[in-house]
Amino acid sequence: MDDLKSFRQMNSKCPGHPENFMTEGIEVTTGPLGQGIANAVGLAIAEANTAATFNRDGFPVVDNYTYTILGDGCLQEGVSAEAASLAGHLKLGKLIALYDDNKIQIDGSTDVAFTEDVCKRFESYGWHTLVVEDGDNDFEALTNAIMEAKKVTEKPTLIKIRTVIGYGSLLQGSEKVHGAPLSNDDLAQLKTKFGFDPAQSFIVPQEVRELYSNVHKQGSQREEEWNVMFEKYTQQYPELAQELKRRVGNELPKGWESALPRYTPADPAVATRKLSEIALNKIAEVIPELVGGSADLTHSNLTRWKSAVDFQHESTELGNYAGRYIRFGVREHGMAAICNGITAYGGFIPFCSTFLNFISYALGATRLAALSHLRVIYVMTHDSIGLGEDGPTHQPIETLTSLRATPNTLVFRPADGNEVSGAYLAAIENKQRPSVLALSRQNLPHLAGSSIEKTLKGAYVLNEVANPEVVLVATGSEVSICVEASEELAKSNIKARIVSMPSMELFDEQEQSYKESVFPRGVPVISVEAMSTFGWTKYAHVSIGMTTFGASAPADQLYEKFGITPSAIADKAAKTIEFYKSEPLPYLLVKPF
Amino acid sequence: MDDLKSFRQMNSKCPGHPENFMTEGIEVTTGPLGQGIANAVGLAIAEANTAATFNRDGFPVVDNYTYTILGDGCLQEGVSAEAASLAGHLKLGKLIALYDDNKIQIDGSTDVAFTEDVCKRFESYGWHTLVVEDGDNDFEALTNAIMEAKKVTEKPTLIKIRTVIGYGSLLQGSEKVHGAPLSNDDLAQLKTKFGFDPAQSFIVPQEVRELYSNVHKQGSQREEEWNVMFEKYTQQYPELAQELKRRVGNELPKGWESALPRYTPADPAVATRKLSEIALNKIAEVIPELVGGSADLTHSNLTRWKSAVDFQHESTELGNYAGRYIRFGVREHGMAAICNGITAYGGFIPFCSTFLNFISYALGATRLAALSHLRVIYVMTHDSIGLGEDGPTHQPIETLTSLRATPNTLVFRPADGNEVSGAYLAAIENKQRPSVLALSRQNLPHLAGSSIEKTLKGAYVLNEVANPEVVLVATGSEVSICVEASEELAKSNIKARIVSMPSMELFDEQEQSYKESVFPRGVPVISVEAMSTFGWTKYAHVSIGMTTFGASAPADQLYEKFGITPSAIADKAAKTIEFYKSEPLPYLLVKPF
Repeated sequence: MDDLKSFRQMNSKCPGHPENFMTEGIEVTTGPLGQGIANAVGLAIAEANTAATFNRDGFPVVDNYTYTILGDGCLQEGVSAEAASLAGHLKLGKLIALYDDNKIQIDGSTDVAFTEDVCKRFESYGWHTLVVEDGDNDFEALTNAIMEAKKVTEKPTLIKIRTVIGYGSLLQGSEKVHGAPLSNDDLAQLKTKFGFDPAQSFIVPQEVRELYSNVHKQGSQREEEWNVMFEKYTQQYPELAQELKRRVGNELPKGWESALPRYTPADPAVATRKLSEIALNKIAEVIPELVGGSADLTHSNLTRWKSAVDFQHESTELGNYAGRYIRFGVREHGMAAICNGITAYGGFIPFCSTFLNFISYALGATRLAALSHLRVIYVMTHDSIGLGEDGPTHQPIETLTSLRATPNTLVFRPADGNEVSGAYLAAIENKQRPSVLALSRQNLPHLAGSSIEKTLKGAYVLNEVANPEVVLVATGSEVSICVEASEELAKSNIKARIVSMPSMELFDEQEQSYKESVFPRGVPVISVEAMSTFGWTKYAHVSIGMTTFGASAPADQLYEKFGITPSAIADKAAKTIEFYKSEPLPYLLVKPF
Repeated sequence: MDDLKSFRQMNSKCPGHPENFMTEGIEVTTGPLGQGIANAVGLAIAEANTAATFNRDGFPVVDNYTYTILGDGCLQEGVSAEAASLAGHLKLGKLIALYDDNKIQIDGSTDVAFTEDVCKRFESYGWHTLVVEDGDNDFEALTNAIMEAKKVTEKPTLIKIRTVIGYGSLLQGSEKVHGAPLSNDDLAQLKTKFGFDPAQSFIVPQEVRELYSNVHKQGSQREEEWNVMFEKYTQQYPELAQELKRRVGNELPKGWESALPRYTPADPAVATRKLSEIALNKIAEVIPELVGGSADLTHSNLTRWKSAVDFQHESTELGNYAGRYIRFGVREHGMAAICNGITAYGGFIPFCSTFLNFISYALGATRLAALSHLRVIYVMTHDSIGLGEDGPTHQPIETLTSLRATPNTLVFRPADGNEVSGAYLAAIENKQRPSVLALSRQNLPHLAGSSIEKTLKGAYVLNEVANPEVVLVATGSEVSICVEASEELAKSNIKARIVSMPSMELFDEQEQSYKESVFPRGVPVISVEAMSTFGWTKYAHVSIGMTTFGASAPADQLYEKFGITPSAIADKAAKTIEFYKSEPLPYLLVKPF
């Protein structure tokens, strides 16, 4: 009751919008419109997959419906359309959406902007639809609709429920009753109308207490029955039971990380997206709870492991519900929101994939993963102007900056095979936050001095050089370019240290002494990244990168055009060393607070 | 022909994806899926509004259909769903979408992810639909369908055209024919099949030249007829003709800027979103080409000016096509993409609005505005933790960082009334780039020392203090907090300069001498912004801001919790001054390159 009284106050269990990390029992954090139903599609996918994997004849150990409530606003959002279309395709029969059709949105009547036929739209997606004409009073019709929905096993159901917003209030049927407290007079007449004592507040009537007490008893009884069933299941299928417990307990298989490939400079140059494919193949074998897929760029993102089976309804003959590879279609935002739902269900490590630039379509959901402490892995390929000919509409510039500025998000831009393995290790071991892997289209050499362990430090010295005159700090495809630049500098007897920085966030979490060992006092630092330079001033005195959009041309020509070549870097390094002979050189790692 | 030969090469008129700024005749830059049809909805809105405003009996001076071609991938994107739903609501009868239904997407058959009934979906939106069964050969059916579409005047039309991808190639009907050149053998058999000489390349046959020459002649003739008509129109409606020319010529009304309100510290404190409403009311009067609206947050964004008429089909009795206020519905991504189309049509200055945090839903389109040099104004309210109780799902943290890292985008966070006016002035005068206005929910005082003119400098000294010991640079709602902090510091005889920085981008474009006058050498700089601190190291030695997500509570308590109060700032300022007595103080405005 105190929680209700502290509605929208600091540290309340009843904040402005439901948050899974504030309040036990909240399954997903929504608030931003359209996320809820998309999360629900993820929850339903997770249920279907878990059931197909673990249930056995007579042992429905996982067997729940997924319910979601959504309004007119949710239905206007593209993310809900993407997720609903996919849910219809996947025939998620145990997903039941309750659409609160109150014909009011914040601008007033839905007549101003939303006059489509929602049921017809959902039928076009392959959903079953039902209508409850009086959702304010006819609870029997509502109950019957839910029972009816459960009978349709190969289609999700949308129940359109006609309601009056603020029913019973003097403001009923108007947008004015949204998001603002009722007046005292209105509250009093509302309570009287529904048989409450208008003088009393924060009261739960005895019959309501009894009703919910019975619900609680029923629940306990059902849980007891389930426990008995699971006990028998454990006897009959000990390995399955053990495995289910492990997954739901969010424990990783012991020693899984030894499957991660390691490389030496003798290995042939290869794109980090390809190295990601090799890693995913290994990980998928040892971590069966890894599920995921691509927004229709499987052949480009290289996300489908060899033994993968598609998550599809059996009737399609394209896969089955035990399949772990999800064909998301060209639905980036829906994909990311669905992955939030899959993580929230428990027992899964989902990844999803598109070109790095198109994570911009999905930020509404990736942000909620970070806020909700959900482990989702974003496998983002074609990570810079290095993608070449597809041009500036496909080349990310601001994208990594945006992700790095998002709290509780790990961003990786690995430079070679060991760093790709390290990035996957960190992404999987960090159970309370999402990770973005930015991967190259173009081939990159394996670096002398890289390792999985160093990757986990976020940044490390790649080449040991005594008394360096300049530090070149780079990420991903630019690290090997800096190695070449240091070789050019060596010809002029300039000693350059190379720092590879696969993850700013992990580096920021290291001890101060380690950080200072990487960036020594008195040595100018130049950052090199084929992205927006915005934000690099945190570590670097000067930055080489992008300050404009890219262009359509072969990658080599673009690097030349934008001045990200060994010789351009070497030139600027020499200038920088010279410049700081007469200017005081700030040490960026020590701050007053 | 040379342009075709340099396909996807540097500076080619035929880049990887069509770009309006590279190639004359390209109306909008697409590439990212779903943007094209959403742009087309904007083009059709612009046409309808221009026609309703300028056409007179016998003078259809604006009278074009809008055609858009889209594929399976475009239809899977939420942004296309949002725009299509709105187009149906608005009854945009002159919008004709040609859907290339080839049943192939990059992952293979659309059977893997996209099995909905597209025509039924579009009918649910209020579209008219037609089907052409053999789009590869039956051009008569295609022509007839377009003629049929034109007859339906109160519904947009989707023509579903069954085609075979790569028709005629040995790879026809497969995703392998997408985005990769055909083999020489395949090209040879293809040319032979269609009656071309396989030995010849880059050839336009004589009959094709003649056909297009006739098209050109027809076009010239139509243009001539239009010129004659417009001449008569100019005689009969000289003011209208003059006005249409002005708008299409992208000239602003002379002296419009004198309508912008100016304020003094005597004016009462008010939220910058409210100041934006006051400014919009003034601007809408003097700039009739200003059109815009909100994603269903009109009462919160305060975007509807008093005399506004809604852009609605007349039959709704809610407005008419000459109306300038657009009810976008809860469709942020569609809204932003539609505004790109409106700008691209010419003769308009569109704005669109939502909470700042939800621009994250729309970045796919705002990025294309920047890339395409399109002036769109994003009126983004509720711009920080200052929105209070709605909580962290609604409080932007990384959002401004992301926008500031996007090339060719102006970002404004005005601190008071004069800065709001200055931001609108800059946004409107910058014809080649979009602008974001981040506006407060909470009331802010009018500052002594602010002005429209200083706002245009991007940053300026708010309070003249001789020999300051510290500079506090802030934006928006934090500027007045810094003024209070400086008053606290004054009590300890510490002199603090306040710099208000409404726009980093405009500041970066100033002369070096001006920049150095704002941030003098030898004085430590502290930035204060209730946002991610990421990126502020560019100007500030240390930063006060957000490094986590926000929370749900009253705004004052949140500012207290996150340490953004006058006393916390004063404390940190004193610490900073002390710290740099023993550490060398870097000067951040001078760089080696």
